Amino acid sequence: MKIIVLKFGGTSVGTIEKIKKISKIVTSFVNKKYKVIVVSSAMSGVTNDLINKSRKISDNFNTSEYDVLVSSGEQIACALISGRLNHLGYKSRSWLGWQVPIVTEGTHRSSRIVSIFKKRVLAYIKNGGIPIITGFQGVNFENRITTLERGGSDASAIMIAKFFDAEKCIIYTDVEGIFTTDPNITKKAKKIDKISYEEMLEMASLGAKVMQPASIQDARLNRINIDVKSSFKNIPGTLITKRKNINKNKIITGISFTKNDSKVTLIGVVDKPGVAASIFEPLFKNAINVDMVVQNISADGNKTDLTFTVKSEDLNKVEKLIKNNKKIRFKDILITKNVSKVSIIGVGMITTPGVTYRMFKALSKKNINIQVISTSEIKISVLINKKLVTKAVSTLHNEFKLEK
Amino acid sequence: MKIIVLKFGGTSVGTIEKIKKISKIVTSFVNKKYKVIVVSSAMSGVTNDLINKSRKISDNFNTSEYDVLVSSGEQIACALISGRLNHLGYKSRSWLGWQVPIVTEGTHRSSRIVSIFKKRVLAYIKNGGIPIITGFQGVNFENRITTLERGGSDASAIMIAKFFDAEKCIIYTDVEGIFTTDPNITKKAKKIDKISYEEMLEMASLGAKVMQPASIQDARLNRINIDVKSSFKNIPGTLITKRKNINKNKIITGISFTKNDSKVTLIGVVDKPGVAASIFEPLFKNAINVDMVVQNISADGNKTDLTFTVKSEDLNKVEKLIKNNKKIRFKDILITKNVSKVSIIGVGMITTPGVTYRMFKALSKKNINIQVISTSEIKISVLINKKLVTKAVSTLHNEFKLEK
Repeated sequence: MKIIVLKFGGTSVGTIEKIKKISKIVTSFVNKKYKVIVVSSAMSGVTNDLINKSRKISDNFNTSEYDVLVSSGEQIACALISGRLNHLGYKSRSWLGWQVPIVTEGTHRSSRIVSIFKKRVLAYIKNGGIPIITGFQGVNFENRITTLERGGSDASAIMIAKFFDAEKCIIYTDVEGIFTTDPNITKKAKKIDKISYEEMLEMASLGAKVMQPASIQDARLNRINIDVKSSFKNIPGTLITKRKNINKNKIITGISFTKNDSKVTLIGVVDKPGVAASIFEPLFKNAINVDMVVQNISADGNKTDLTFTVKSEDLNKVEKLIKNNKKIRFKDILITKNVSKVSIIGVGMITTPGVTYRMFKALSKKNINIQVISTSEIKISVLINKKLVTKAVSTLHNEFKLEK
Repeated sequence: MKIIVLKFGGTSVGTIEKIKKISKIVTSFVNKKYKVIVVSSAMSGVTNDLINKSRKISDNFNTSEYDVLVSSGEQIACALISGRLNHLGYKSRSWLGWQVPIVTEGTHRSSRIVSIFKKRVLAYIKNGGIPIITGFQGVNFENRITTLERGGSDASAIMIAKFFDAEKCIIYTDVEGIFTTDPNITKKAKKIDKISYEEMLEMASLGAKVMQPASIQDARLNRINIDVKSSFKNIPGTLITKRKNINKNKIITGISFTKNDSKVTLIGVVDKPGVAASIFEPLFKNAINVDMVVQNISADGNKTDLTFTVKSEDLNKVEKLIKNNKKIRFKDILITKNVSKVSIIGVGMITTPGVTYRMFKALSKKNINIQVISTSEIKISVLINKKLVTKAVSTLHNEFKLEK
């Protein structure tokens, strides 16, 4: 039995016309003898509208009721898709998270799928039915509706693919796939045919908004092939798969970047064990995401300079928290707004020496000054002036010949 | 334990502001030491919007998916109410039909509540919680969401009042209660303090749109006191109760009327057993509602004249069905459009002779011609020219002193 999971995002089911359109995608797989499981998000706009309602009711809306509220969005979308498939003469029904059931643990608004009881859905599939399962939601052991943490409906689709041993999971969305970089930055950006989980994780967390890192990590752990495709154009998308499935003919797979970062440097911090923890503790407690962190070696072995980046919208709060932090002492604080992080990503760099050098040289030729550097096994990130992002991305795109 | 059921209709929860307002009604009862169960409809407009979506998907939308779709409306309203009560510092949670569970039988879109498993909700109430239960929906033995037949959320509220042995069920709506007649017809129309189930049934089925007859019948069978009140004004409403609870100081309780009826008379019908059934069978099969039926005694014992009324919008269809009906023979068909039925209703007429005479005399004094008469134990209906409805209602309102 060839099971395939088709997941449709909010924009793919955003209107009645789009629901009619994606229903034909579903039937095309059924006609190719696949056993299809559909996972759907809410129609685009619906979830935001519900969240707005909750905000008007309370600035501290009860989280379990929040889950009851927003889960109605997927319920509506799934009933409509199923209704359409029935209209087209196919056997189909919606399965809400609690009906499957998709069992979750953890707190409301950020639950995790721990188990999917597949018996009834599987029997339905074997009888020729097309189940339309609500994404982004489940039910907890108290029999209450839950919604998932980061990853949302993608996470549902991937866990369903795992529990049902699906051959593949196709994520239908409003883009054609994963690109070497943002096509708005350079027209040379090219769709990537295949990308490894690890690269995709770096791409996702660095700004490519197609899939949430948590779902990619789930797919990676469970070795599920994910195809990211457009629901509007019938053209090949990007396959996210394990490294072995990819012919490594490129050093760099993609370039990602951030916008609106700010750099904070503490000068002359008294360097003693635990000082970094003391600096970041209040930021963590206020849910402020700290990105690049660089600590210079202190010249006299007593004092050090520490640099980190945060989102610019958090900057005021960060400045206040640092200045009010009684646990740390430093000489000065320097703040640089309008910086951006540009990263090159590729599993190929593991086996190819000189990538860092090529990157720095290419940027330096264009007079792009590097403020901070941070590297991992498969990525190199540099912090630069925000105004130079387009130039830097284009330069690196050319340098590593990503358009080919 | 004094349990009270508060049911809010769509207009009572139609906006965020209204949800905030009715939440205060709920807490006022909690503060008076009542154990409150809330039953809510969907926010007004939401259900229609969902139905419109289903129509765009299919002109024959799958009924079980229809139930999944529209049931989301009450889910949203209940989550918001519960969220508001939590915001105000009260312990509250939503209970969807399947969570209670409210078990239904029958087909989708027109299920009936057969059982309510109250154990968990009752424990919650005893622990000081305010359950907010979705009206209009339940779950069937296949674990699928169902919606109810006629009566909708009112039926849910009344069945919940029954199963939880509630002291009273208050139906909050957008009117102040039940009036002696439509205030748009005569300004003398007065709110009724108490009305018997039987009278209310006649009022409801004759045009007063406040409550569906099916729910009143449920209340009657289970002897549940219903208070119909405005959710916007804090003033007494109308109590629907058993006859014994009412001081019968009035002969007539109210006057109702229809609009847009048509009268059909078949002249010279060959009178043989089963002929009436033959006439009405095709109308029944086409879901056409036949209202007043009068058959005159045939002069020669062989032929008879038969008169009945239907909604004017059904008239063309009725005419075609009658003329194409091979099973009946008649001399002629007479059609009178633009007639209305005016009814006086009151349990008092059982014990008071001469009511019919007073009604006919009052109408005749105003030159209002009566075309057809039909009576039951507690009501007298007459068919008149539609143009004369206002005059007739005012005349009868005065005659029976309903303004006092």
